[in-house]
Amino acid sequence: MTEGWDFQVTMDNTYIVIMAGGSGTRFWPLSREAMPKQLLRIDGEETLIQQTIARVRPLIPTDHIHIVTNKSQADQIRYQVPELNRNNFIIEPAAKNTAAAIGLAAVYLNHHNADSVMGILPADHVVKNKEAFLDTMKCAFTAAREGYLITIGIKPVRPETGYGYIHAGEPLNPSTGIFYVDRFTEKPDIDTAKKYVADGRYFWNSGMFVWKTSVIISEIERHMPSLGAGLKEIRSAIGSSDESSVISRVFAGLESVSIDYGIMEKSDKVVVIQADLGWSDVGSWTALDDISPRDARGNVIAGNVVDVESRDSIIYASNRLVATAGLNDMVVVDTEDATLVCHKDRAQDVKKIVDELKKRGAEEHLTHRTVIRPWGSYTLLEKGDRYKIKRIEVNPGARLSFQMHYHRSEHWVVVSGTAKVRRGEEEFFVNPNESTYIPMETKHRLENPGRIPLQIIEVQNGEYLEEDDIVRFDDAYGRE
Amino acid sequence: MTEGWDFQVTMDNTYIVIMAGGSGTRFWPLSREAMPKQLLRIDGEETLIQQTIARVRPLIPTDHIHIVTNKSQADQIRYQVPELNRNNFIIEPAAKNTAAAIGLAAVYLNHHNADSVMGILPADHVVKNKEAFLDTMKCAFTAAREGYLITIGIKPVRPETGYGYIHAGEPLNPSTGIFYVDRFTEKPDIDTAKKYVADGRYFWNSGMFVWKTSVIISEIERHMPSLGAGLKEIRSAIGSSDESSVISRVFAGLESVSIDYGIMEKSDKVVVIQADLGWSDVGSWTALDDISPRDARGNVIAGNVVDVESRDSIIYASNRLVATAGLNDMVVVDTEDATLVCHKDRAQDVKKIVDELKKRGAEEHLTHRTVIRPWGSYTLLEKGDRYKIKRIEVNPGARLSFQMHYHRSEHWVVVSGTAKVRRGEEEFFVNPNESTYIPMETKHRLENPGRIPLQIIEVQNGEYLEEDDIVRFDDAYGRE
Repeated sequence: MTEGWDFQVTMDNTYIVIMAGGSGTRFWPLSREAMPKQLLRIDGEETLIQQTIARVRPLIPTDHIHIVTNKSQADQIRYQVPELNRNNFIIEPAAKNTAAAIGLAAVYLNHHNADSVMGILPADHVVKNKEAFLDTMKCAFTAAREGYLITIGIKPVRPETGYGYIHAGEPLNPSTGIFYVDRFTEKPDIDTAKKYVADGRYFWNSGMFVWKTSVIISEIERHMPSLGAGLKEIRSAIGSSDESSVISRVFAGLESVSIDYGIMEKSDKVVVIQADLGWSDVGSWTALDDISPRDARGNVIAGNVVDVESRDSIIYASNRLVATAGLNDMVVVDTEDATLVCHKDRAQDVKKIVDELKKRGAEEHLTHRTVIRPWGSYTLLEKGDRYKIKRIEVNPGARLSFQMHYHRSEHWVVVSGTAKVRRGEEEFFVNPNESTYIPMETKHRLENPGRIPLQIIEVQNGEYLEEDDIVRFDDAYGRE
Repeated sequence: MTEGWDFQVTMDNTYIVIMAGGSGTRFWPLSREAMPKQLLRIDGEETLIQQTIARVRPLIPTDHIHIVTNKSQADQIRYQVPELNRNNFIIEPAAKNTAAAIGLAAVYLNHHNADSVMGILPADHVVKNKEAFLDTMKCAFTAAREGYLITIGIKPVRPETGYGYIHAGEPLNPSTGIFYVDRFTEKPDIDTAKKYVADGRYFWNSGMFVWKTSVIISEIERHMPSLGAGLKEIRSAIGSSDESSVISRVFAGLESVSIDYGIMEKSDKVVVIQADLGWSDVGSWTALDDISPRDARGNVIAGNVVDVESRDSIIYASNRLVATAGLNDMVVVDTEDATLVCHKDRAQDVKKIVDELKKRGAEEHLTHRTVIRPWGSYTLLEKGDRYKIKRIEVNPGARLSFQMHYHRSEHWVVVSGTAKVRRGEEEFFVNPNESTYIPMETKHRLENPGRIPLQIIEVQNGEYLEEDDIVRFDDAYGRE
C-alpha cells in the first residue's frame, strides 16, 4: 500500500454517523430510559451528544452529520441539536444491534453518494484530546478511501478489564500508526489486561470506525448475507411510498448482531489506527474518576454536598442536600426521585437495580421528574390520588400544542412571566398571581408571548393523569 | 435498711417527669431542630415520647405524668400527647442542663405535694422489656420513700464505649438488686469496657432516676447551693403574677450542670438498681442495630429500598427510592430534602454535618418538608422566586386559625375532601377540582367540615413567604 498519504484531502464525500441508541442503564439514576447517557451533561456544560457533534464540526459540514437513533429518543435529541436537519436523522424501527444500524446508515449514504466514506462515532463517549481526534479521523478517512475497514484503537492507559482489546499485527503504514489486525479479544481478566498494556501492541476497541459505504455494504453481503439481502430490499424501497414499511418489515426479521462480531472479526480488510485521545466510553459511574477533576482527597464531588473526610469517592448531587462522612471508594448519586449508593466495585450492579425496578413496575428507571420539551420543560412536583402537580416552564416566544384532554381538568397559577391562553374560542392573558382553569375536553393552548420565561403551577384533577391523554390539533414542533 | 419491701405500695404520691429537651442532632436527617428524636417513630408505630408515656401508664394516673421541655418543642409534644393537660407541661425558659430542669420539676411537684416521689425518664429512650421496667420502677419508688436517690443501672450486654458506667458497691437490699454506688465512670475505651462487662458489677448509666422531691431539693441545696437558692426563689413565686418572670430571671443566671455531675457523683444517698430492660438510649443511627429487626444479611432496611447484596447496613428511606449495592457496615438515611451516607464508624460525625449546615445558613437541619400542625399537616413541595407551593392536609372537623398575611396571596385548589372557606365577610365551600383565591391582607380561615381528610394545593405568591408572616385572630389550639 501507499506510504506518506496526503491528509489535506477533500472531505466532500465524507460523512459522520453518530450512533445514539443507548438505553442508559449504567448511569442510572441520572440516566433514564427516556434520558439516556448521551443526553446528559456528564462532562461539562454540553451533553455528550452535543460534544460529539462539536468534535466533528471542524471536519465536515453540519449536513454531513447523521444520527442513527430510535423513535422514542429522536425528539429529545432534536431538542438538543436543533441545528441538524430532520433528514439527517436515521430512525431504526427496532433495536437490532450495531451491524443492522450501521448497515442501514450505509445504504442511505451510499444511495445518496456512491463514493461516500462514513465515520461511525458513538454518541456517548468522551474524548479529551480534540486535536488528536481530528488528526486520527483525517488519517482514517484517507485509509478508508483505499478500501480498508478502519477501527480506532485507543492506547491503553491502565489495565482495564471492562473493554475489549485489539491485537495489532504487521504495520500497514508505519508513519501513521496503522496496523493490520491480528485479532479482537474479549474483555480480559486483570492479569491478562496487565500483559496487554505491557505488550504495547494491544489497543482498546473504541467502537469508532471509518470505511467507504460501498466497502462495508459488500463486506456485509459477504459475511452477513441475510442482513445484506435485507439492506438490498431497503435500498430498492428508498424514496418510494413503501420505504418505512419495508424498513420496519426487514428490521423485524433481522438477528441482533454487533458490527464487531458480524464483520470486524471476519473481514480481511480490517486495520487499526492507534490513537491517544483521552478517551472514555463513560461506561459506568466510576468513569468519572477519569474525566472529572478530583479534590485533594481524590473525590469527584458535584452539587449540593456536605462531606466530612471521605476519600476516593464519587458524590453526585443535584439541588437536594447529600451529606457524607468517612466514605471510601463509594459512589453516591442523588436525583429528585431516586438515590444510588454503592461501592465502586459494584458500579456495574446498577443494571441489576434497574432490572429490579422493571420487575416491580416502578417508574424511577423510565423518566426524570423534569422532562425537557421543545417549548421548555415540566417538572412533576407531586402525584397523588386523582391529582398531579407540575411546574411548567415555557421559553420566551414558545407555545405548547393546541390540545385537549379527555380525563383531566387543569388549574394554572402563573408565578412569573405572562401566559397567553387559548381556551375553546376565548383568548386571554394570565399574569403573575392570577389563575385560570381548563375544563376536561376543552381545546386549549398555552403560550409565552413575552421575553422572560413563563412559570406556571399546574394542578391536574382527574381519574387518569398520564401523559398519553393528549389529543394534539396543531403543534409547532411537528409532534403528532 | 429494711429487707423484703412490700411492692404493693400505694402510688398516690408518685409522679413521673419526662425530660424532653433533646436537640435531635444525632438522628439527622430524620431528626431536625423542630423535630427532635423523641418526636420520631424510630421503633414502631408510636413516637419515642408516646412510647415513654405508654410505658408508665400502668404505674400511675395520666395526670401524674409531667413533661419538662422548652417552649419551641412544647406545641409539637402537645399534638402527639393530647391526653396530657397543659398544666402537666413544665417549660424551661432556657436550656440549662439536667440539674436545673430536674430541680425546677422537683420544686413544682413538692409545692403541690410535699410527700411526692418523682421518677425521671428521658423521653427518647427505648425499653423493650416493659414488665421488667415496671417492676424496676416499683422497686425504685419503694426505695425512694426510704430517702435514697435511686439511679437505674442497666446490665451491660456488650462492651459499649458510648455510655458512662456505674460501679456498684455493697448491696443495700440483696433480694432486690439494689447496691450502694462506688463510683460513676466516664465513657471507657474498648478494653476497659470489656473489663467492666466481665466484672459484673458495672452498669450502664441510663439517666433514669427516682427520688423524693424533698430529698433531691435538699441535696441540691447541699451540693449545688447556687441552684438551691434559685429554686427557693422560684418556689416562693409559684402562683404569683411574677412566676414566669422570676423563673426566667433565675434560669438566666444558672450554670449548665448535669444532675450526674452536680448531685449523683457527690451525694452519699445514691444507690443503683440493676435492671435488664432491653434498653437503648438510641444515641445514634447505629442503635437501630439493637432495636430493629435485621434481615438475613444483617441489614436494617425500611422504606422504598432496592438493595443488591448489602451487609450489616442500616438503610432508611421514605417514599423516595433508595437503591444500594454491596454496602458493608454503612448507614444510608434518606428524607424528602436531605440524604445521609456514612460508615457506621462515623455515625457520630452527623453532628459535624449539622454544624456545617448551620455555618452555611442552610435549612436542612431546622425543619422537615412536612410539618405537623394540630389541625393536620403541610408539606412544602417547592420554593421558588416569589412563590411557594404547599400540599395542605386538614383533618376531618379541624380548622386553621382565622388569620391574615401581609406579604402573600394564596391560591387554593382542592384535590380531595371539601373545604369551608371564610374570606373576609364571605363564607363558602370549595369542592374537589375547584379553586379559590385569598388576596393579601384579607382575613381568612380554612376548615374541613367533612368526614374525610381535606387536601389542598396552595400556591403562595409574594415578596416574603416565611411562616412568621401570619397574624392570628382566633385559634382553636390556643396559639398566638
